[in-house]
Amino acid sequence: MSSPDAKRLKTDDDDDAPYELIYWPGLPGRGELIRLLFEQAGVPYIDHTIDHTKTPKEARQTVFEYIDPDNIGDATNLPILAPPILKHGDLVLHQLPNILLYLAPRLGLAPKEGNGVFLLNQLVLTLLDGFVNEMHETHHPIATSLYYEDQKPEAKKRSKHYLEERIPKFLGYAQRVLHSEASGGETWLYGNKLTYADLVLFQCLDGTNFAFPESLKKLRESRHYERVFELYKRVKEQPNISSYLASERRLPYGDGIFRHYSELEKDVQIKLPEPRPATL
Amino acid sequence: MSSPDAKRLKTDDDDDAPYELIYWPGLPGRGELIRLLFEQAGVPYIDHTIDHTKTPKEARQTVFEYIDPDNIGDATNLPILAPPILKHGDLVLHQLPNILLYLAPRLGLAPKEGNGVFLLNQLVLTLLDGFVNEMHETHHPIATSLYYEDQKPEAKKRSKHYLEERIPKFLGYAQRVLHSEASGGETWLYGNKLTYADLVLFQCLDGTNFAFPESLKKLRESRHYERVFELYKRVKEQPNISSYLASERRLPYGDGIFRHYSELEKDVQIKLPEPRPATL
Repeated sequence: MSSPDAKRLKTDDDDDAPYELIYWPGLPGRGELIRLLFEQAGVPYIDHTIDHTKTPKEARQTVFEYIDPDNIGDATNLPILAPPILKHGDLVLHQLPNILLYLAPRLGLAPKEGNGVFLLNQLVLTLLDGFVNEMHETHHPIATSLYYEDQKPEAKKRSKHYLEERIPKFLGYAQRVLHSEASGGETWLYGNKLTYADLVLFQCLDGTNFAFPESLKKLRESRHYERVFELYKRVKEQPNISSYLASERRLPYGDGIFRHYSELEKDVQIKLPEPRPATL
Repeated sequence: MSSPDAKRLKTDDDDDAPYELIYWPGLPGRGELIRLLFEQAGVPYIDHTIDHTKTPKEARQTVFEYIDPDNIGDATNLPILAPPILKHGDLVLHQLPNILLYLAPRLGLAPKEGNGVFLLNQLVLTLLDGFVNEMHETHHPIATSLYYEDQKPEAKKRSKHYLEERIPKFLGYAQRVLHSEASGGETWLYGNKLTYADLVLFQCLDGTNFAFPESLKKLRESRHYERVFELYKRVKEQPNISSYLASERRLPYGDGIFRHYSELEKDVQIKLPEPRPATL
């Protein structure tokens, strides 16, 4: 066990320590947003989820050990409630937006200080709210402890509202960001360069496209969110992202956050906003 | 409009600028978690919500202007999706955990750098997930655009699971943190001193006690989460918090995140975990 060293994180002293991602095996889930940062940055990381030296059962066991109620952390670290978990040297972190906040400046995907730290953090929190947290509720509106099959009528109602109201709202927000002066042009979300927020938006759209392909197709073809879908393509074509997506490391979607139940898209009537002139 | 200054936030250059909180008038809501930081720190702030120079209608109008789809921010700031909103000098932030992350070190309620920044951020994100975000879903499990009355059967189902499974889980997590070495003793959540995480936990419990008093009473009387409820009392008795709570500035609960519908607590059967010996 190490002793706490409050100053360590300010510098890059720990950059020699390997980054380790601990997550449920077999699905992209929330862990995928972390993987994309490493992949874009070209920085090696140990992925306990797809480490071929471990069986899925062993990988799952590693998660269970961290989240065990009897595991109360150590002198440096607080207990862990849920994965994804990042281990970097002696530091062990949880909470997806927190892990991204920690990693992004170290991987060259966000400024190390100043306004940009907070502007990107709020953007990422908003994207995760809309496309990850609320997405999860579409198939589990009553309880995470129940199967989807046990909450289907409620899931259908929630999904209808999600697709008709919430997804357009969050897509509209991203489009609005891409019209803002602070984005520095329509290419990237903030500061006219690729940041981790762009990677998060990419994965949000990719997952939503798996879960609700018909609705997303309608929204895309409406051309109301053109800059958003262009950004999606732009991220996908980044050389490192493109080779990652073609690799075995990119896990197929399944029973994680992003799930495809075609019945949830039925009877959905996307209401599009009135066309607005570009304001920049 | 000011030009961006990426270095500014690193120092305290802006400390002369007043802090302004912009939120929906008439309810504590998410804004309350921000107020508690200012109140504990004894730092003045302009609260547009309870500013007596403004009618509630005008205060609401201020929020609408920020979140208007045609408001795309400026050279410094990205657009705002939803309140609470913090204005500090030229910087305008949204997203509750982001605003807390920005304020806490400036108000002496979190370290300015090092591990503690991330350990506290993950703790606060976890508390907000459990007691604020999931709390909202208990009365709005289908859609935020519908009235509670239009989703009562689903709200009842969701609340039962929330009270029987989720609240004990998050209380258990907070108790686990208070057993951890990194908490530095059982008094405060992290580093043996009061931080903004303690203020957040206080408000989470206070709001939950308003929404679900019978369930919280049972959980409190079980003595399974004794350190958590002791911390609640300890925060409440802080001189600045105590005078704030007695003041007119502390708004009564109403139709915000924390709502009391007694029917949602009926037929709830709190299952308590087996007693565990203290591990420290």
